[in-house]
Parts: sequence; structure tokens; C-alpha cells
Amino acid sequence: MTSPSERPAPAYPAAEARSLPVLPVLLDGEPVERAERADAARNRAKLLDAASSLIRDRGAEHLTMEGVASAANVGKGTVFRRFGDRAGLLFAVIDKTEKEFQESFLFGPPPVGPGAPPVERLEAFGVTALRHLRCNMNLYVEADRNADRRYTSPARVVRERHITLLLRAAGVTGDLELLSNTLLSFLDPMATEHLLANRGRTLAELEGGWRDLVQRIARPA
Amino acid sequence: MTSPSERPAPAYPAAEARSLPVLPVLLDGEPVERAERADAARNRAKLLDAASSLIRDRGAEHLTMEGVASAANVGKGTVFRRFGDRAGLLFAVIDKTEKEFQESFLFGPPPVGPGAPPVERLEAFGVTALRHLRCNMNLYVEADRNADRRYTSPARVVRERHITLLLRAAGVTGDLELLSNTLLSFLDPMATEHLLANRGRTLAELEGGWRDLVQRIARPA
Repeated sequence: MTSPSERPAPAYPAAEARSLPVLPVLLDGEPVERAERADAARNRAKLLDAASSLIRDRGAEHLTMEGVASAANVGKGTVFRRFGDRAGLLFAVIDKTEKEFQESFLFGPPPVGPGAPPVERLEAFGVTALRHLRCNMNLYVEADRNADRRYTSPARVVRERHITLLLRAAGVTGDLELLSNTLLSFLDPMATEHLLANRGRTLAELEGGWRDLVQRIARPA
Repeated sequence: MTSPSERPAPAYPAAEARSLPVLPVLLDGEPVERAERADAARNRAKLLDAASSLIRDRGAEHLTMEGVASAANVGKGTVFRRFGDRAGLLFAVIDKTEKEFQESFLFGPPPVGPGAPPVERLEAFGVTALRHLRCNMNLYVEADRNADRRYTSPARVVRERHITLLLRAAGVTGDLELLSNTLLSFLDPMATEHLLANRGRTLAELEGGWRDLVQRIARPA
């Protein structure tokens, strides 16, 4: 086991990584500017655990601030002070869920983690993301209904940056922001849910579609 | 001037077009199954005109069923009976707005209309769609907040079919449904609004990004 500080840096060219804006999140999905004292952090973790349990048992669409307060034995005001509103709570739960996923693509074994060629990593990233999404569909779809945060959630920012760096490492030229956005849209929760639930597509077909899209975007003109 | 029945068919290979499901809309965006008597159609047109005026004057986000009823001098119940709910009204206004746009890509002059090679038509389609979107951003973003109808609105169904037929006509192989969905996502109202308003991207950059994406998807492996 290595401690976080001993971990190898992601295998992007260092010069490229430096030219990108600093991320507003740490790897555990906790906003840097909201560094909390230990007891506050414990309190927050307790609320998030309660929310996760409720989502697992009853579905994200039935999650309420009151339900979380009652399950965690705190006042409703505490939940509101901590997360702002229901959408804020859902995004916090997703940050928690994303932690594991981020670990896998930033520090895990290849091909999704460092060590594989960038195009191979990108293919593995989408496949892993689609499987992760299907396991947590209910949560992601529910959080995504809050349109105003869809494009600025820490989870999305980290994913977009990861895709951009892999495209750059693969030598892809062009408007990498727009290409990353296009790839990200393939992993959109509601779009994926629509294809699986309403169009009868399978997860394997979506995985194949992702690999094909990566190849089309990455291959030289 | 030619009447609708004299119009040339879109320049897709006929055999391919036949293999696709029949569209749930006519070109004027009116669902086939809701064919209306002339007076009901006039009534509907009056309500849609009132809604369009209100949106132009005050913005789609301030549109209410009551406001439309009052502007058209009818009871509120009439508006609800006709459109179901506010989202239904917004989609009906979009269908009206889409009519002109559909005319241009199905029957208008090349390169967006028939006559140009399919890849060139596809490039022109996206450029026209992005410009059309920017002129009506407010309306499209507002209607798109209704997530449940986002993937089944007649406007989207017609666009997706158009892109699929052009990809097929261009000889693109692969999972055309997923490729069409990817291209369509580039024209997504909220994603476009985010890039223009929050990321400082220009319409010209998005148009360039669309052309580049079409080339990457259409070029042979």
C-alpha cells in the first residue's frame, strides 16, 4: 500500500498538465476551499452515509432532506446548512461514489489507469464509466435533473480534464475542449438511460459504440 | 411555388428510407394521430401565435398557461386541454419554429437541402442548426428542462432520422443510431448554451467543431 503522497503522477506529459487550470476538487471529491475540521468532516460523512443507504434502499428519486436528517438523527436544518439543497446533497453523494471511480482511472491498474497507451486508456475509461453509470443510474439521472449544475459538477470537471489530457497525450489535434465534450456526452446519464430503457440497446452495444467513437476521433486525418 | 405534394423527395436512397420507422409527425410538426378539424386547427394556431409573441417579448422562461389564455382571449382550461401542460405548450411552439428549419434541410437549396453530397449536407445541417439554436436559445433551453420529453420530442426524432439517413447515404458504416446520437448531442441546447455563455466560446468555433466532428465520423477507417 502506498500513501497518497507516494502515488505516481498520472501519465500525462507534465508540461501539458501544467497548462491546464487547477482543479477545484481533490481526489476524494471534497472541494479544496471547504476544508473542514475533523468533527465537521465526521458529521458530513455520517449524513452522506445515511443518504447513500436511503438511496440504495428506496431509490434516489425518493431522497428528501428530511429523510436524511431523520436517518442520521440530526435536525433538518443541519442537512440544509451542510448541503444547501437536495441537488447539493445528491451531488455530494455522487462525489463520494465518484471517488472510487476516479481512483481507478487516475491510479488504478492499466488499461484504465496509467501504463497503457492513451487511446487504449480512453477506450477503457468509457467502458468503465458506462458500467459504473449503469450500477448507479438512478442516482446519476436524479442528480442530472438539476440542469444548472450539470456542466459544473466536480465529477464532470474531473472527467473532462482526464479525457482532454488523454486526447492530447495521444497526439490528437483540433479543438480538444469540443472533442472532450462530445466524448463526455456519450456517457451522459439521461442519454444512456434512454438508449438502454427506451431503445432496447445493451450495455455491450454502448461499450462497442464508445470504442468506435474513440477510434474515429483519435485516428489521424 | 410548388405545393407540398409536388415537392421532390429528400435525396436519400429510397430503399434505406423505407427501412426506417414512419415518423410520428408531418412536416408541419403536427402529430398525425391528432388530425384536427379546421376550426380546432385555427384555434390552436391562435394560441401558438400568442405564445410565440409572449416568448419574443418576455422570454420563454416567463411563459405561463394563464398568460397565453389571457393574450388569446380564451379560458385557461382551453390552453390546458389543447397542450396538456406548460412543457407541452413549449414543445408545440418549438414544433412551429422547427417547421421553417425542417423546410430548409429537407426541401431547401443545397448545401443544406438536397443536391449536395451527403457529408457536405451534414456539415451544413449542423451549422444551420447551431445558428437556428442561437436565435431561439431561450426557447430551446426552456423546453429542454423537461427531461422526460427531451429524447422523444418530434423535433429531435426528425433531426435524428435526417442525420442517420445522411450518414447512411455517405456510406458510413458502424452503429448509425449511436453515431447520430453523438452528432445530435453536439447540437444540444444546454450544452451549446454552456459553451457560449460560460466558456466564452464563439458560434464560429462551434461551427468549426461541428465540421471537424462530421469529418472524423464520416472518413473511412
